[in-house]
Amino acid sequence: MTGLDVFNPISSELSQVEIDLLASIDTDLPILAEAATHLIKAGGKRLRPAFALLSAKVFSDEVCHAIPLAVSLELIHMASLVHDDVIDNSELRRGQPTVKSRWGNRLSVCTGNYVLAKSLSLTADYLNRDVIEVVADTSMSICDGEIRQMRTCYDVTQGLKEYLRRIERKTALLISVSCQLGAMINGASREDVEALKRYGYYLGMAFQITDDILDFVAEEDVLGKPVGSDIRQGVITLPAIYALRCSPHRVKLAAMLSSPESCASRAEEIVDLIIDSDGIDYAHYASHRFAERALRQLDHLPEVPVIESFYRIADFISGREY
Amino acid sequence: MTGLDVFNPISSELSQVEIDLLASIDTDLPILAEAATHLIKAGGKRLRPAFALLSAKVFSDEVCHAIPLAVSLELIHMASLVHDDVIDNSELRRGQPTVKSRWGNRLSVCTGNYVLAKSLSLTADYLNRDVIEVVADTSMSICDGEIRQMRTCYDVTQGLKEYLRRIERKTALLISVSCQLGAMINGASREDVEALKRYGYYLGMAFQITDDILDFVAEEDVLGKPVGSDIRQGVITLPAIYALRCSPHRVKLAAMLSSPESCASRAEEIVDLIIDSDGIDYAHYASHRFAERALRQLDHLPEVPVIESFYRIADFISGREY
Repeated sequence: MTGLDVFNPISSELSQVEIDLLASIDTDLPILAEAATHLIKAGGKRLRPAFALLSAKVFSDEVCHAIPLAVSLELIHMASLVHDDVIDNSELRRGQPTVKSRWGNRLSVCTGNYVLAKSLSLTADYLNRDVIEVVADTSMSICDGEIRQMRTCYDVTQGLKEYLRRIERKTALLISVSCQLGAMINGASREDVEALKRYGYYLGMAFQITDDILDFVAEEDVLGKPVGSDIRQGVITLPAIYALRCSPHRVKLAAMLSSPESCASRAEEIVDLIIDSDGIDYAHYASHRFAERALRQLDHLPEVPVIESFYRIADFISGREY
Repeated sequence: MTGLDVFNPISSELSQVEIDLLASIDTDLPILAEAATHLIKAGGKRLRPAFALLSAKVFSDEVCHAIPLAVSLELIHMASLVHDDVIDNSELRRGQPTVKSRWGNRLSVCTGNYVLAKSLSLTADYLNRDVIEVVADTSMSICDGEIRQMRTCYDVTQGLKEYLRRIERKTALLISVSCQLGAMINGASREDVEALKRYGYYLGMAFQITDDILDFVAEEDVLGKPVGSDIRQGVITLPAIYALRCSPHRVKLAAMLSSPESCASRAEEIVDLIIDSDGIDYAHYASHRFAERALRQLDHLPEVPVIESFYRIADFISGREY
C-alpha cells in the first residue's frame, strides 16, 4: 500500500473529491472559509472517500455519481476531527496546527457544525432515504463515540468491551458506511452491500487499533503529533488495557494512568511500561484478527479487478509496521 | 397572543411535536440522553414548529405529516442554542442552567452535534431534495450568524447593515424556512410558498429585534437570564447601534462598549445610557416596520381561518411590550 497504489483504480475520482471538498466551502464569511479550508487542506488519506469509490467500482466502472457521497463522508470525518480537537484540546494534527489552536474553540465549534451541515446537504442529492439516514445516524454515533472517549479518560477499570464499543462508534462505523453506501448507490445486491458493510466495519476496527498502536511506537514526524498523545490526555487504548491486566507493574501503572497529573508529566514512563508489557503485541494480534475477518467478507463478492484493492488494504492494515 | 391562543388551530399537533422531540433522543448513552433531554425540556415557545404547522394548515387541514419537519426545525434551533451557550459562555437560558453550565463545553459540543444530525436525519423522510437542502443550508447560515456575532463583539464601528445581516442568519432564516417548508410539503403553489417564506423572514427579523430590545428592558424573571446579558458579552444590538450614533454620550459609550472589562463591570450604566438615547424606541420602530412588511405578504394568500393567526402574530410582535 506504499504510495497508496491500491487507490489507483479510482485515482481520477479521488482528485475530483479533492476539488469538490474545497469547493464545498462556499461562504462569504472570510474567517469561516479560511478555517474550513485549513481543515480540508490539512489533508489525510481520504480513506472514507476511497472506500466509497472502490465499493462503487465493484459494481460498475462508472463511479462519478459516488463523488458527492465520497465528499460527504470525508466532511463528516472532518467535522468530527475539528470537534475532537476542541474536546481533546489538541494543538497539532498531522503536523499542522489544529483549527482550535489557530482560531480558538468557538470558531472550531462553528466550523465543525458548518462542515457537518454541508455534508448532510450533499447527501440530499441522492434522494435516497437510506443514504441520508445512514449518514446522519453515523454522525450521531460518532458523537456517542466521542462522549465515550471523554467519559473513560483516566478510567483504569474499563474493559476490552468498552474500548471496542468506543472505537466502533468513533471510527469503524463511518468506514463501514462508506463501503455500504458506495455499493448501494451503484446497484449492488443486498447481500453484496451487507458483505462490504461488514468488511468496512472489521477493517475500521483493525485500522483504529493500529492507529492506537502507532501512538505508542511511531516516530513523531510520521505521526504528526507527539508520541504518547493519548496517554497524555488519559485516553486508555488497547495496549494500555492489556498492560493494566497483565503487566507485572500493573498496580503502579493503574495509579499513574488514573491521575491526570502523572499522565501529563510521566507519559514517557507510562509508554515504556506499556511497551514492556507486550501490550503492543496483543493489540497487533487483535488488529490482525479484525483484518482477517474483514478479508473473509470478500469471498462471495464479484471477482472483478478492483477487489484486489480490498484484499491489499486489509493485508496492509493487519501487517502495518512503521 | 397571551397564552399563545394563536396556536390553537394546531394545538394537538404541537403536543405531538413535544412528544416526538423527546422521543428523538434515542441513545443508549445515559449522559447524552440526559443532556439532550434537559435541552429539550428547557422548553421555549416552539415558534418554528408552530410556523411550520400553521403554514401547512393554510393549504390542507391534514397537517400530521408536517410533524417530523416541525420537530426537525426545532432541533436545528436547539442545536444552535446549545452551541451558542458554549460560544457565549452562558450559565442560564430561560431561567434554567444551560447544558454547558451543567455538563461542560465538551459534552455541549457533542450534544449539539447529535441534535443537529438527528434533525437532518428526520428531513430524510420527506424524500424531497428541497426540504433536506433548505434545512441543511439554514443550519449552515446559522453558523455564519454565530460567527458574525462572535466577530462583531465590542466592535463599536459596526453599522446597521452588519446587524441586520447577522440577525437574518441567526434567526430570520430559520423562521422563514419553517413557513416555506410547511407550505411546500402541503402542496402550496410556488407563489404562496414564496409569500409565506417572505412573511417568515420579515417576522423573524421583527422578532429578533424585539428580543434584543427585551435584553434591555424586560424583568429578569421574564427573560430567564440577567438583564443586559448582551451588553455584558459585548454583543452590540440595534438599540446600542442607534445610541452609538445618536446619543449625546456616544463617545463615552463607544469607549465603554469597546472594552470587555467595562462591558462586564459597567453593564447597568451602559444599559441606562442606551435607554436614555431613544435607542429602544428606534428599535421598536424598526421591528414594527419589519412586522408590517410581514403582514403585507399575507394579502394574496388563501382566505382560510388559520391566516388569522399569522396576522395576530405579526401584530403582537410589532406591538410587543412586557
